[in-house]
Amino acid sequence: MVRLRGFKERTIVRDAVKALEGVRFKRVDSEIVEITRACGRILAEDIIAKYNVPHFDRSAVDGYAVVAEDTFGANLNNPVMLKIVGEVEMGEEPIEMSRGTAVRVSTGSALPKGANAVVMLEYTKEVGEFVEIYRPVVPFENVSREGEDIKAGEVVLKAGEILQPQDIGVLASLGYAKVKVLKKPRVVIISTGNELVEIGEELEVGKVVNSNAYMLFCALKMYNCEPSVYGIVRDDFDELKKAIIQALSVGDCVITTGGTSVGKGDLVPEVVKEIGKIVFHGISIKPGMPTGLGVIDGKPVLMLSGFPVACLIGFELIFPHVLAKLTGVRVVKRRGEGVKAKLKRRIPSKAGVRTFARVIYKDGFAEPLMTSGSGILTSMVRANGIVVVPEEKEGFEEGEEVNVVLVRDLIEEVT
Amino acid sequence: MVRLRGFKERTIVRDAVKALEGVRFKRVDSEIVEITRACGRILAEDIIAKYNVPHFDRSAVDGYAVVAEDTFGANLNNPVMLKIVGEVEMGEEPIEMSRGTAVRVSTGSALPKGANAVVMLEYTKEVGEFVEIYRPVVPFENVSREGEDIKAGEVVLKAGEILQPQDIGVLASLGYAKVKVLKKPRVVIISTGNELVEIGEELEVGKVVNSNAYMLFCALKMYNCEPSVYGIVRDDFDELKKAIIQALSVGDCVITTGGTSVGKGDLVPEVVKEIGKIVFHGISIKPGMPTGLGVIDGKPVLMLSGFPVACLIGFELIFPHVLAKLTGVRVVKRRGEGVKAKLKRRIPSKAGVRTFARVIYKDGFAEPLMTSGSGILTSMVRANGIVVVPEEKEGFEEGEEVNVVLVRDLIEEVT
Repeated sequence: MVRLRGFKERTIVRDAVKALEGVRFKRVDSEIVEITRACGRILAEDIIAKYNVPHFDRSAVDGYAVVAEDTFGANLNNPVMLKIVGEVEMGEEPIEMSRGTAVRVSTGSALPKGANAVVMLEYTKEVGEFVEIYRPVVPFENVSREGEDIKAGEVVLKAGEILQPQDIGVLASLGYAKVKVLKKPRVVIISTGNELVEIGEELEVGKVVNSNAYMLFCALKMYNCEPSVYGIVRDDFDELKKAIIQALSVGDCVITTGGTSVGKGDLVPEVVKEIGKIVFHGISIKPGMPTGLGVIDGKPVLMLSGFPVACLIGFELIFPHVLAKLTGVRVVKRRGEGVKAKLKRRIPSKAGVRTFARVIYKDGFAEPLMTSGSGILTSMVRANGIVVVPEEKEGFEEGEEVNVVLVRDLIEEVT
Repeated sequence: MVRLRGFKERTIVRDAVKALEGVRFKRVDSEIVEITRACGRILAEDIIAKYNVPHFDRSAVDGYAVVAEDTFGANLNNPVMLKIVGEVEMGEEPIEMSRGTAVRVSTGSALPKGANAVVMLEYTKEVGEFVEIYRPVVPFENVSREGEDIKAGEVVLKAGEILQPQDIGVLASLGYAKVKVLKKPRVVIISTGNELVEIGEELEVGKVVNSNAYMLFCALKMYNCEPSVYGIVRDDFDELKKAIIQALSVGDCVITTGGTSVGKGDLVPEVVKEIGKIVFHGISIKPGMPTGLGVIDGKPVLMLSGFPVACLIGFELIFPHVLAKLTGVRVVKRRGEGVKAKLKRRIPSKAGVRTFARVIYKDGFAEPLMTSGSGILTSMVRANGIVVVPEEKEGFEEGEEVNVVLVRDLIEEVT
């Protein structure tokens, strides 16, 4: 009754994670990629605005560009008459105008030279070559000023952020065709066990297909890693040692399956002990008890059970912590998930309209962003959540509990 | 005060979605891919087991293979003595044995020919060439029978499932190197607007970078689509018509940005009206009001605002519904998300051990799977969630509310 030695120590999960966090792992390198390939990747540089956004004064509404001073005193009974001297559509270069005149503009049009405000269409009426202005505007009313959204030199995105589609849009707006991101961690999968055969090989009695490698390959891709498969290694100390050393030479991390529970053919921890250090081996979980972690030359070796379910559960429990150490970024919650939050400020909305308010979620609170217009780029990178006000409500009150849908991964920095 | 016609109708979201669901769209085709590339893809065929799993009787424990009848009457005071005639390790071919003998086996070893049960190591002791058996076993005790997990011919995964890492493992186990999945929907992005320039082009006053195309490209990849970029089209009816027709010839879906709010340069809906049908145009949401959907030759044309935030919000609101129609599968909740559920049956667990119980979640209830051992493949494809029993608890009671972590996407079939 003694052949099975049994695990001397089964670490509880909390202690295993603590031990893991105490180890220094080599961080993955960075690389420069095209922005179309950067989504979901971890930003490895601060993004600094190369120019002002907008880079010209532009109209924030459809209407007439004017000299504000011309409109003072205008009202419904005494409209101001201005001569229409032209039109600037979106994308067109601005024309010049002077006092006493007006120019037709659309939302986004460059403000004509000489103009300093825009009167909304609703408060005007064209009469022949003239336009009647029914309401005064102050200087720069209805104008998005150059640099109002982003000032040249401003840090728009910080290193460590996980890039979202909206960030890619902002990068494009700022003229970035490429961006520096962390490399995808290269993870090499080693399958151990004399019983394993590859798909397509003859499945003799006693053999099983090496399915864990395929399963982990896919799971690793879901974590935005770059998996590769070393293949099957027999239960032999020297072969296994050779395999692990070779895998470590190309990978940021090695994952083994099989050969970790205590028994005759369970050699992986022995090899790790010889050429590196065991961080923990044997956790008090079920299934997945033989899960272990080692470190060799600053690189993690995650040792998983050969049994598929135990393998996947051990992986899902430990790998995210390993990944956080490799990248310096821990994902706390994923984009698309919902969190409850208390509103820091009222969100107004119109009955009958479903309103999507951008908020900054932090520690159980949601702070609505003060934004004007739907084109404001900074709000897209500053907000990490959306509060949806349904049609039947007229906004949410300060202090009210709301559901925040995350529009970016919630992350924590890892040392 | 009349130049801006305004939207005659702003459909409320519910009605817009209903209108969308009433349209028939062409489904995407299927293709055969390697299983390492199939994760996250939609299965397009039923997966049928090619052979029994396990495909041989195997030991479920470490111990001694015996003829059950030899052990009858054994107890601590009167052990049965059997001659050890060999050993079968995992992966080895089974040897032959006869009554009165025993063979050393490990978990997963093929059962020796002639044996019909395994005595656990704990109830044995080796004495020279013999082993003392302290407890009787009945026929097939501690044996996983051939086909116990999966029977040849059984449907293991149904068409329409979104393939998860565990499914890929099961496919490998069943000898599938390739699998038939739906093609990734090809979505062509057309950017409209005279104000747009590409990254790197000179950003004159009045111009803005075509950032929406990059943003949508990335967002579409997150939805497992195959995006492509048509490029910038000027605000010209004929050019736009040509672009949409060309995009439809290569795409399963077309997305346009800009040119959808009612104004001079807003031509997209006009083009769609001429060569197809408008499903809706103008939704009562903020931002994103000008969002619209058309259908041309059974293919959806999603019309989005040119303003980045409105563009993304319109996309996230409507595109998932379009995608569900293109694929026949609607994702209700994502893998990794948590849902509350009432337990249909008790989950037992040992204090001090964190237990991961596989459950089937449905309509607010979680049914724990009856499984033995961590290698049971079918449990991996049948379970869609995990209930974690923390170390300080001894299981959860029937009827108790628990948190289920989804291990596969919750889906609905779409007609």
